[in-house]
Parts: sequence; C-alpha cells; structure tokens
Amino acid sequence: MNEGMNRVNDEEGRKGGRNEEAPSMNEFLKIALEEARAGIEKDDGGPFGAVIVRNGVVISQAHNEVLRRNDPTAHAEILAIREASAILGRYDLSDCEIYSTSEPCPMCFAAIFWARIRRLVYGTTREDVAGIGFDDSLIYEVIRGEAEAEQLVLVNVDREGCREVLEEWERRPGRRVY
Amino acid sequence: MNEGMNRVNDEEGRKGGRNEEAPSMNEFLKIALEEARAGIEKDDGGPFGAVIVRNGVVISQAHNEVLRRNDPTAHAEILAIREASAILGRYDLSDCEIYSTSEPCPMCFAAIFWARIRRLVYGTTREDVAGIGFDDSLIYEVIRGEAEAEQLVLVNVDREGCREVLEEWERRPGRRVY
Repeated sequence: MNEGMNRVNDEEGRKGGRNEEAPSMNEFLKIALEEARAGIEKDDGGPFGAVIVRNGVVISQAHNEVLRRNDPTAHAEILAIREASAILGRYDLSDCEIYSTSEPCPMCFAAIFWARIRRLVYGTTREDVAGIGFDDSLIYEVIRGEAEAEQLVLVNVDREGCREVLEEWERRPGRRVY
Repeated sequence: MNEGMNRVNDEEGRKGGRNEEAPSMNEFLKIALEEARAGIEKDDGGPFGAVIVRNGVVISQAHNEVLRRNDPTAHAEILAIREASAILGRYDLSDCEIYSTSEPCPMCFAAIFWARIRRLVYGTTREDVAGIGFDDSLIYEVIRGEAEAEQLVLVNVDREGCREVLEEWERRPGRRVY
C-alpha cells in the first residue's frame, strides 16, 4: 500500500509459482474469487470477495453487497469481519488472517486494523480497481493529501463542548479501550 | 483533516459564538453528544456519537457499539450510515449531512465518502481521540506513510488470477458502478 506498511510483494507467489494455472492460486483467494463471482451473478455489488481464516480454517466468507443491501459499508471485507466477529463472539480477530480479491479500500483497511488482524493477503491493486471505475484509489489520495475531496466539505466546530464527553469517559472506572 | 480536504475550521463556531455555554452548540452535535453519553452509560463502546441529517431532519443517530455488538466496525458513523441507508432505501446519501462528536477515523471517513455525503461536521480532533487511547491517528499516519503498521503484514499475490474477475465484471451488461 505504501512505505509505512509491512508490504511483502509476491511472497507466496514466489513460493507457489504464480505463473501456473489457476488451480495453483492461493486456496483462500480462490474461495474469495468464488465469492466475488457469486456477487457478480446476483448483481449484489462490485466484483469483490473476502475470506477470514483462523488456524487454516475458513471462519467467514463474503462478497460485496452494497447494491443488494442498499448499504454503502457492505464491502466484502467489512461483511467478512462482521461475520467472523459474530461467530467468534469477539471484536478482536488478532488470531485471524484476511484474504481479499482486491487491495482493500481505506474503509476496509482501517476495519482490518481495528479488528487487529495480523495478515492481509490480496490480489489486485487499488490501481486495478480504479481502472474499472471504483474510487478506492481517490480516497487513498485524499487521505494522503494528494487529491481534493471535492464533493465533501469538512467543518470543525464545538471542539471544547465535544471534548467534555471524552473527559467523562476518561473518568469512568472500568472503561475498556478496544 | 489535511490539505487535500475542503476543511472549514470553525465555520459555524464563528457564526454562532463558540465561547458561549453548551446550549449554543450546534443542535445536531448536541444530539450526537447525547448518543455518546448513552453509549458510555451502557458500556457499549468508545465515547463517540453520530447523527445523519437530511433537510434539517434527523434521519438516524447512533453511538459506538463495538463492545456490545462484538463488532470492530460498529463505530457511531458506520451505524448511523447503515441505519440512514436502510431507512431511505438507498446507499447514496448525497442529500444528507453527518455530525460526529469526533473527527472520524479512516474507516468512517471512507464510509462517508462511499455514502456520498457532502458535509461532515465534527467536534474533537484525531489528536484528542488519540489522547484517550484510540488509534485513529495512528491509522491515518499508516495510510499516509508516516508510521509503520507493525502488527499487520500485507502480502500481494495472484494479481493476474484475481484480475480475471474484474474483467468478467467489466464485460457484464448492465453492471452498476456505485
């Protein structure tokens, strides 16, 4: 994604031989691809799939359902994380890996971070995704200060008033930072 | 947030007089604060609230429920967006504004972007939020390449195999880019 991340290019590609036929693909990315294809067939949303794996076992798998659910947050990674958290009964997925057919958008990247997932394996890049019309790359550029978010105006007001609630929380015994 | 965003500092603060007592606060931020306080009382999650407004009317309001739901994506803004989308029956909230007690984390910022919301009003900054122990600021720094995501390893493999599904989607008649 960028220099600040522990990116390993083609680590498994080198091991497994990425130039072979599809059957040699990473087995979990194959499942994620099947999810993406199912989503295309059903017109559920964009062509993206994700799988969450723990100790070599698939915990959850999902595809993009933004259109079917009328939910702009229903990206494959978000749905897979929510399902895995529900199944495991915890928000901390630090013993899990996530496999995504495409490099996650900033929403999903941050969600992976909040879920404390330790390993993200992905196929196509944000540039590939931008090439078919999705704005992932633009949102990254906006966050990095390299592009304008022309449609979004940000207004910062009432900082002091809102800070009171942070202070109330800090004074609360037994508060849990997650 | 940064230079790439159309940030307006204290636009309403200047108009409304931000040094007055709490009743002069932005009315929607006050509702968001009440949500945040309800969340603290119930130990549902972090001290954050959000409200979505359309034509001056509150469509949805939510507080952070990461702990109650065991869902790392259950930030106030995400829940408010999901609820507003469900109520309005569409993923496009371009006629809505969002009010958040704190500057949204990258997950929520990108979700606001995907929902096509045009105006974001927030109270405390990412630095305030970092000051009470939440990693919003760090995730921004990681995305901007200013910090290491030490706990997360990224692996890019099978780009060509995964690109096939993007191409299948591109060939599909009637596909909807959202």
